[in-house]
Amino acid sequence: MVLDRHWYTETSDTLGMGLALRLRQTLHEETSPYQTIAVHETETFGRLLTIDGLVMLTDRDNFIYHEMMTHPALFAHGAAKRVVIIGGGDCGTLREVLKHDSVERATQIEIDERVTRVAEQYFPALCESNGDPRATLAFEDGVAWMQNAPDASVDLIIIDSTDPIGPAEGLFNEAFYRQCHRVLAAGGLLVQQSESPLVHGELIGSMHAGLAGAGFADTHLLGFPQPTYPTGWWSATLAARDPGALRAPESAPAFETFYYTPAVHTAAFAQPAFMARILGG
Amino acid sequence: MVLDRHWYTETSDTLGMGLALRLRQTLHEETSPYQTIAVHETETFGRLLTIDGLVMLTDRDNFIYHEMMTHPALFAHGAAKRVVIIGGGDCGTLREVLKHDSVERATQIEIDERVTRVAEQYFPALCESNGDPRATLAFEDGVAWMQNAPDASVDLIIIDSTDPIGPAEGLFNEAFYRQCHRVLAAGGLLVQQSESPLVHGELIGSMHAGLAGAGFADTHLLGFPQPTYPTGWWSATLAARDPGALRAPESAPAFETFYYTPAVHTAAFAQPAFMARILGG
Repeated sequence: MVLDRHWYTETSDTLGMGLALRLRQTLHEETSPYQTIAVHETETFGRLLTIDGLVMLTDRDNFIYHEMMTHPALFAHGAAKRVVIIGGGDCGTLREVLKHDSVERATQIEIDERVTRVAEQYFPALCESNGDPRATLAFEDGVAWMQNAPDASVDLIIIDSTDPIGPAEGLFNEAFYRQCHRVLAAGGLLVQQSESPLVHGELIGSMHAGLAGAGFADTHLLGFPQPTYPTGWWSATLAARDPGALRAPESAPAFETFYYTPAVHTAAFAQPAFMARILGG
Repeated sequence: MVLDRHWYTETSDTLGMGLALRLRQTLHEETSPYQTIAVHETETFGRLLTIDGLVMLTDRDNFIYHEMMTHPALFAHGAAKRVVIIGGGDCGTLREVLKHDSVERATQIEIDERVTRVAEQYFPALCESNGDPRATLAFEDGVAWMQNAPDASVDLIIIDSTDPIGPAEGLFNEAFYRQCHRVLAAGGLLVQQSESPLVHGELIGSMHAGLAGAGFADTHLLGFPQPTYPTGWWSATLAARDPGALRAPESAPAFETFYYTPAVHTAAFAQPAFMARILGG
């Protein structure tokens, strides 16, 4: 539904809704072996990264997503040394992870190297920690990587993927979660982007059931705004390998944040009444 | 930017963004003395009410807005008997207010009677409490009504208006807040819709400064998702006439809710880091 060249539009017939962002110009477009990657300059949201016509991030609002995919899990763990990011090719999640001094090794497993190369060129701020000696950028399939990873070798797995269709489909099922559970060390956590509470309740319910089926002791849904994703309301699912593993945040981070605070951390766990019913809470 | 008759689109050049909802048909359109009111049937969000081409509500997601404009304030007050709603012509706020047994009188002051008449016809569920003996529907100017109201005669003022342009402009300034402060009884609260934290930070800051200037003891910003409003992220500003007046919610409401819970109530007060800086918190 690109109906006027001055607006970028992402519409979904399934959801019956769409988003428009006013464009200045398109800066880049390419088709990788996996998908079509594009970068646009918008009027008010800075640069916009899209994959297969879907918004991945904008300069203006990606801080919410990247902070909420990382800081709650890292502070809830308390001492994560070995972090693995599945997906996350724009490197914004990696950057936030590396703000935590506890982290000794952060490995990003992105299937499509071109996403990272495009991010390096057009979103340099997101990639500013790629040269950190603790960081490894691997370009391979996340499902295969997890199958080959040793038992109990990771403290935190962050699944920062696209929607559960196409390349990311294999990251949203119990078989994959079983591998993640095996790879997590004692006290380990998994956090995964889990779509919109308003319109993806069924998916969220099935993710939580799959995690429980894979042996995770408990699962939580963290809600946050994400204005350029469908409905503007997004979530992350946080799962703990062992019971009682989640620490409450104690004090403000030692680094600057724009969305995350300890109060926001606690607040993100509060479930709307309809979602509490879906999750059986 | 109605570029395809199968989609309703609301775009803002100022914000550089827009929303699209897939349409089945337009059910109603009229121009009242104040504004153009329309009702559309969407594919996935039920019926859609617009005023001057801006989304007022949809069947699917108005529950969040209406619950968050009412239940936090009513539970924070604890014993509100006399409630006044400025605006709120769709009657959804009135319906939520009347779920509270403490309420003895709820008066809705809507400038445009046609909004209410259209809501009665096309959104009967929102209007199901209009016949409650505690309810009064008045059709007059909210600013004038407040000027004429006796001192200390209201426990809770809810300002459920359109954006601060056009008919609602006079509801967003210190002179109006001074009248509200005068009309509130001891322990009284005011709650007002206050636009999107992401893109209306300046307005929110000026509302909070205006409320403080008008004598309110403290002000809070409550955040919540509202998928069909710009950015999908909305807020209500809650102001207390007297210091220390806000009660914490104790137990689950005696009535069914879809968004509100006591945990959601507490969580809504958590400010994102950037907003805490705007509000000086």
